[in-house]
Amino acid sequence: MKSISIHGATGSIGLNAIDIIKRHPDRFNLRVLIGGSKIAPLVQLAKEMNIPYVAIADQTQYKALKEALPTDTTVFAGESGVLEASALNVDVCLAAITGSAGIRPTYTALSHCKSLAIANKESIVAAGEQILAKAKQCGTQIIPVDSEHSAVFQVLRSDKLDDLESVTITASGGPFRTLPIEQFSSITKEMALKHPNWAMGPKNTIDSATLMNKGLEIIEAALLFNLSANKVKAIVHPQSIIHGMSSYVDGTTLAHLSLPDMRTPISYALGYPERTTCDVPTLDLIKLATLTFEAPDHQRFPCLKIAEDCLRADQFHRIVMNAANELAFNKFMNNEIHFTQIPEVIYDILESAKPHRINTISDIISLDNLIRGEI
Amino acid sequence: MKSISIHGATGSIGLNAIDIIKRHPDRFNLRVLIGGSKIAPLVQLAKEMNIPYVAIADQTQYKALKEALPTDTTVFAGESGVLEASALNVDVCLAAITGSAGIRPTYTALSHCKSLAIANKESIVAAGEQILAKAKQCGTQIIPVDSEHSAVFQVLRSDKLDDLESVTITASGGPFRTLPIEQFSSITKEMALKHPNWAMGPKNTIDSATLMNKGLEIIEAALLFNLSANKVKAIVHPQSIIHGMSSYVDGTTLAHLSLPDMRTPISYALGYPERTTCDVPTLDLIKLATLTFEAPDHQRFPCLKIAEDCLRADQFHRIVMNAANELAFNKFMNNEIHFTQIPEVIYDILESAKPHRINTISDIISLDNLIRGEI
Repeated sequence: MKSISIHGATGSIGLNAIDIIKRHPDRFNLRVLIGGSKIAPLVQLAKEMNIPYVAIADQTQYKALKEALPTDTTVFAGESGVLEASALNVDVCLAAITGSAGIRPTYTALSHCKSLAIANKESIVAAGEQILAKAKQCGTQIIPVDSEHSAVFQVLRSDKLDDLESVTITASGGPFRTLPIEQFSSITKEMALKHPNWAMGPKNTIDSATLMNKGLEIIEAALLFNLSANKVKAIVHPQSIIHGMSSYVDGTTLAHLSLPDMRTPISYALGYPERTTCDVPTLDLIKLATLTFEAPDHQRFPCLKIAEDCLRADQFHRIVMNAANELAFNKFMNNEIHFTQIPEVIYDILESAKPHRINTISDIISLDNLIRGEI
Repeated sequence: MKSISIHGATGSIGLNAIDIIKRHPDRFNLRVLIGGSKIAPLVQLAKEMNIPYVAIADQTQYKALKEALPTDTTVFAGESGVLEASALNVDVCLAAITGSAGIRPTYTALSHCKSLAIANKESIVAAGEQILAKAKQCGTQIIPVDSEHSAVFQVLRSDKLDDLESVTITASGGPFRTLPIEQFSSITKEMALKHPNWAMGPKNTIDSATLMNKGLEIIEAALLFNLSANKVKAIVHPQSIIHGMSSYVDGTTLAHLSLPDMRTPISYALGYPERTTCDVPTLDLIKLATLTFEAPDHQRFPCLKIAEDCLRADQFHRIVMNAANELAFNKFMNNEIHFTQIPEVIYDILESAKPHRINTISDIISLDNLIRGEI
């Protein structure tokens, strides 16, 4: 029986994880729920599943949450409350807070869990060095949850890294893969929020539309698997069936395929090293009939190139890029900028940012806040 | 440094293996060559690579072989000579004799090598039980060389068999995948010997044209990986890029991809568990662009169904089927029967064969000889 905590319990990843946990009461014991600001689903889940520890990031909701839950539930609120809940000991922590808000809770959880299922790619992009060093120090296993990284993790399991030539992650290409570049200026928020294959939260969905998601993932893969920038590639595969691949010196490529359903990689991360049934049907390649592959179009999707350049640069540039992307995402969601301005905003911020020395998580958070204009 | 013996040294698999061994004089030491009847290439290889032990199955060539080789080369000939050479101790024995002629040498080699690289699928189809039991008893690792089985072996390495749902091997569909059934009666030997993707020996190539090759491979997979008949599937994949897959209870399918070049699986079997460079380029999926999949057509290719039925039956039926297929292959190559008569010959022999109790390798060989009309 594994005890579990979920950071980001009411988001898309969190809810999928709970779907899996409910199917296996004999294997998983959900102990800690951490939510952002949505109180109603958090209360419902906590009551239904009898969760002893519940935290909410929005400090103003403390009283309402406390009153809505049974008296024996321990309730936490605010930034420090989330960190307090992150420090509760569990077997598996699912880190699924979106964006740089996840950095500190993820970092805190590392010394209080046996394995960290990481869905918060931004924390690796911005704070990968610190997180990986601490995981090593604590003996905590990091298991990726992003479908691409779960795929690569699985296909890398049985070979020596010496024999590895490269790792490839796939991109669906998003909703604008075939849209002529002349029409990019008329892309609306509603259009960008419709992903052709994956059901995900808004940040991931917009990042997929700009291909920044694949840029973040290339960085995440390089850090998680300790690979140089030239060993991590992205290709466009519109059907989203092959998620990740590893290629070896003998001409072999190993690939992970599944339907685009996040329950497959989430169940893998929760149940590792055993696999866990999760109601996702086995792939039927005869029914799918055709898989296609193409090169990413850097002209229409400049974010991918920005991310590749930042991976080749240093941690400072990655933190700035990640924060600038979150800023641009928020501006786009608030109708303050057009879709085509997202890479422009990121590029301009990267050009003008003044170098900072990065050592600690505090260095990272303050640079992130500075870029996002929050201090 | 691994010492190597090659059974079937002048065939397609043998020559590809020698290509790899020559590239790695620091890793492989070729000690034993066993050929069938082609004396000239055997002599050339033995001299060029300074091989101490050389055997030829054709007894009549003993004198010519002995005279053509340096005096310090040990020469063996005839059936018993081949078995004598099979009993020389090496690290890796590559069993690449075609057809049931390989059964005894393969069985003999098992107790004289640390790992047996098995390319002789017919020996597993007919004598799988005995070969696998002896390998277990001797502690000899069996590593498949068929591209499909090498693929499955690799994707099965890191998971528990409990989590496995099924294994899928792919078939190119052969040269007649799209030929209308009305034209099957006009298929010539020359047409059947032209495989669209793979360069292989004549037996394998004709078996690929009838899809019996895939039938033999389904049986081989079930025996090698200890899977029930309903857990092994074949699908048609005309590009021959994905070779084998394993599907798990969580919706995951792991796949092995490579260009259709036998040097990839041969190098894997020789160098296992390390990978070995072999001049096969890394897959470029962007260049390949499209992979397609379809169901096998049992109407036009009845051999696949015959093999599946024999797998569900017993070892007796598999031995008869394998021998009948070799008989039909020989008749087709001698222009004695048409292409469409191959499954008819096999079916008729299966229908009329009188049951035999099978225990020993001798039981298998005598039944095989009986069916092929050799006794």
